[in-house]
Amino acid sequence: MNRVALLAHDQFPHFAKTAMGLLRYSTFEVAAVIDRAHAGKRVRDLLPDVQDAPIVASMDDAPPVDALIIGIANVGGGFAEDWRPDVRTALQRGCTVMAGLHDFLADDEEFAALAAAHGATLHDVRKPPRGLSVSQGRARDVPANVVLTVGTDCAVGKMTVALELTRAAQARGERAAFIPTGQTGIMIAGWGLPIDAIVSDFVAGAVEQMILEKGHDHDWLFVEGQGSIIHPAYSAVTCGILHGAMPDALVLCHEAGRVHSKGFEGFPLPDPSVYVDLYEGLTQPLHPARVGAGALNTRSLDDTADAQAAVQRYGETLGLPATDPVRFGPDAILDALL
Amino acid sequence: MNRVALLAHDQFPHFAKTAMGLLRYSTFEVAAVIDRAHAGKRVRDLLPDVQDAPIVASMDDAPPVDALIIGIANVGGGFAEDWRPDVRTALQRGCTVMAGLHDFLADDEEFAALAAAHGATLHDVRKPPRGLSVSQGRARDVPANVVLTVGTDCAVGKMTVALELTRAAQARGERAAFIPTGQTGIMIAGWGLPIDAIVSDFVAGAVEQMILEKGHDHDWLFVEGQGSIIHPAYSAVTCGILHGAMPDALVLCHEAGRVHSKGFEGFPLPDPSVYVDLYEGLTQPLHPARVGAGALNTRSLDDTADAQAAVQRYGETLGLPATDPVRFGPDAILDALL
Repeated sequence: MNRVALLAHDQFPHFAKTAMGLLRYSTFEVAAVIDRAHAGKRVRDLLPDVQDAPIVASMDDAPPVDALIIGIANVGGGFAEDWRPDVRTALQRGCTVMAGLHDFLADDEEFAALAAAHGATLHDVRKPPRGLSVSQGRARDVPANVVLTVGTDCAVGKMTVALELTRAAQARGERAAFIPTGQTGIMIAGWGLPIDAIVSDFVAGAVEQMILEKGHDHDWLFVEGQGSIIHPAYSAVTCGILHGAMPDALVLCHEAGRVHSKGFEGFPLPDPSVYVDLYEGLTQPLHPARVGAGALNTRSLDDTADAQAAVQRYGETLGLPATDPVRFGPDAILDALL
Repeated sequence: MNRVALLAHDQFPHFAKTAMGLLRYSTFEVAAVIDRAHAGKRVRDLLPDVQDAPIVASMDDAPPVDALIIGIANVGGGFAEDWRPDVRTALQRGCTVMAGLHDFLADDEEFAALAAAHGATLHDVRKPPRGLSVSQGRARDVPANVVLTVGTDCAVGKMTVALELTRAAQARGERAAFIPTGQTGIMIAGWGLPIDAIVSDFVAGAVEQMILEKGHDHDWLFVEGQGSIIHPAYSAVTCGILHGAMPDALVLCHEAGRVHSKGFEGFPLPDPSVYVDLYEGLTQPLHPARVGAGALNTRSLDDTADAQAAVQRYGETLGLPATDPVRFGPDAILDALL
């Protein structure tokens, strides 16, 4: 599976988190993005710094591909019925269909029948494997330095920061690995456990399992964090990753201009120092970790000088090195950690 | 289903948490406890203050019952193969078999076949219903006062304290309800959601659903907490309940003499003030809650004066009213909350 089409109807680019992550970081060759709202444009018209591809209105208009990937990571992870015609077409063409939804494609009777009839594969990356269990609190014992990206909210760039740091550390000759915890990270890395789809008793254990798997033959593990420790809906995921990974250091990720929890307008985000105290406080009794740097997502600021100023303010607020690793490179963060 | 046998091989009484909870709080008539290690004794020989029953070696020796209940809540929630003969016998007798394991009885081919052949029912209370989703952060809006029992560790008495407070509030004429979040609480109450068996993305949402269901026609909801916010394995469950329930007040539960996390000897428990700061800090940005009282489980202290002294020390450490609600009644806690 190499050539893919990314389904991102009405959400491309910024609300189609999975499509954006795959365009930026995956080794897939993206042959088309499917978004009826932007059909006729190209990816580069909307996102300048990722691989380019045509945008088409439906799977009917997509060139030959090995797979269709659902590129939207929506709240609740449900399947949207208006995606059905594209999935149907892909299966009829014999393509693999890959998704990271809580609703599994393989449980859909029509899709299962079409896949069987056309020799196509349904790949639900958010379906956890069997055999997971509770943590034994052993992740703190691995020789690798474990760095976890934590956030002030969901969708601020925790996966992106972990990927940027992994690549930059590898470029410096370090034995570094990315630890994927979400559907997009798993699609990019080709392995990992979908932590937010795992029963809550086994969340820390699943993260621990990944740390133990990679922590003995790497010097650095960069763990993709999820949500925020005070997110009204997702803090369970966040807390389980924090205690399952038992990190040595944390990077606090934030988006410039984000003042409320995304999709939860009644929940203003507190000062970054509140997050530092909570994340560090929760690690202290088990395996103390400090926030070592800040990562600021400045995509909402068109002007580079504005972005630089925002990064500087964020660093001053934290009293720590900070940068936007996508816009300005991750060196400032890496230097603070290594 | 009224007359039951409780399976508790080699764990009765104190390690068979579910059996102990059902003996103390359920409306089931317990016709027998099954524990080969204590066969021939009676419950009252081991636990003085709960309903009495004979202890037998196997289901073969149990009197007629409507159901066999697995009374052991083991780490990881796996089915122990040495329970199989008792479950088999129960199904052959046409009894319901109820369990709160992560491994579902209904997925066991032999049990499914036996149940079908003998018209028996397999009831997995830890199997979550379909249709759960993410929290919307709405639990803080219910008119009821929401009290959550939080802990310094697992198995310190959070369910027991919530049940004692519910009963005592009802006895005072308050419209009070218990909100069950674990398998034993669900068996006792006859409803509830098995929070630690729910995918982590939906944990807060499931708790919110219960709060919204009961919070409009009650003045007090006493929510059964789980684990501890710094438990190496279970903190995801704890954090999800904290933010899903959006409590107005917290009761910090601890067991006298507990110095390490149970089953995690490498993790000493910090001072209670550390827990107070973390639990309160995590509620502060969303819906602030204070720890209003302490509950100390003194079952390890035989001498009443020792237990009284331990309770007094615990209260002084917290700077709050404290008691052992099972041993001394819950009034000191209730007075602090109401």
